[in-house]
Amino acid sequence: MEKDWNMIEVLRHARHDWLNKIQLIKGNLSLNKVDRAKEIIDEIVVEAQQEAKLTNLNLPEFASLLFTYNWENHSFQLEYEVLDDAMAGRLDDRILSKWTGSFFACLDSAAKTYHENHLSVSISQEKEGARFFFDFSGIITDMDRMEKFLNKEYADICVAVQELAEQELALELFMPFYSNGRE
Amino acid sequence: MEKDWNMIEVLRHARHDWLNKIQLIKGNLSLNKVDRAKEIIDEIVVEAQQEAKLTNLNLPEFASLLFTYNWENHSFQLEYEVLDDAMAGRLDDRILSKWTGSFFACLDSAAKTYHENHLSVSISQEKEGARFFFDFSGIITDMDRMEKFLNKEYADICVAVQELAEQELALELFMPFYSNGRE
Repeated sequence: MEKDWNMIEVLRHARHDWLNKIQLIKGNLSLNKVDRAKEIIDEIVVEAQQEAKLTNLNLPEFASLLFTYNWENHSFQLEYEVLDDAMAGRLDDRILSKWTGSFFACLDSAAKTYHENHLSVSISQEKEGARFFFDFSGIITDMDRMEKFLNKEYADICVAVQELAEQELALELFMPFYSNGRE
Repeated sequence: MEKDWNMIEVLRHARHDWLNKIQLIKGNLSLNKVDRAKEIIDEIVVEAQQEAKLTNLNLPEFASLLFTYNWENHSFQLEYEVLDDAMAGRLDDRILSKWTGSFFACLDSAAKTYHENHLSVSISQEKEGARFFFDFSGIITDMDRMEKFLNKEYADICVAVQELAEQELALELFMPFYSNGRE
């Protein structure tokens, strides 16, 4: 998150990701698995639509954090899903990105390295704000650290831990839209 | 060139370009043209290799100019080819990008709008520096402007016009590697 990505690096990573997908299609075509290749293409298109949705949330710092996270070395892989097309109100991108970046950093050091850890993030909106579900599957070795982080309180952010165990962490973050007074 | 691209925009444009390629593969597969789909994949891989080569030239400003040019509205489409994998010496990225940006801007306003104009750039290296071929095909309506630009002299850049006619412009730019004294 601290890294200041430049355009050349961003394009290099994006190219690398896309080429992996192209190679997957190519591999299946060379094995004559045309139907599987078509399925992969459909999955790629859905994934790109998710990326477009995340872009459209108008949260550039938060989106950049999610876009680049798997390009760095971390103890977990990140996935995300955006359930709504656009937000009805505005969120504070800076506060949201700061909390999410700190959460990722905490989980990164608390999760077991070289284990297959996954974090999935879903984003949905409600009348008064946006809801973010963070669902971790893998192994957490440093529970103390994780608990300490999750017990902290943050302005404009409401975190509810639904499950916190060694092999599962699920939490919900609610963030209200800007009130008129703040805009 | 003046535009300051941010990561979200860069990724949006890159995603758009890659999705177009994926759709081309998809279209051919749905018409059962598997061999054509395979050919397209090979073309995509070659194109990505060119992008990687341009990245490796260690000319970030120049590479960014070329990467983003077709994302903006211009009177010609840009293509490029990098003939060597790496440069044996260092070039002044700033001077090169400044000249190339000015040349593109001049050609952009001198070329006939809404006509199919193309500019192809090839980059090769020699013992003492790098050589850039600019090959334009299309229609130039403002020859005066083009001539005036090409008659200007630039420090560290040597431009040789091979052909300048209404429907053809070919020129060679030579740029010497940094001398020891400058490094």
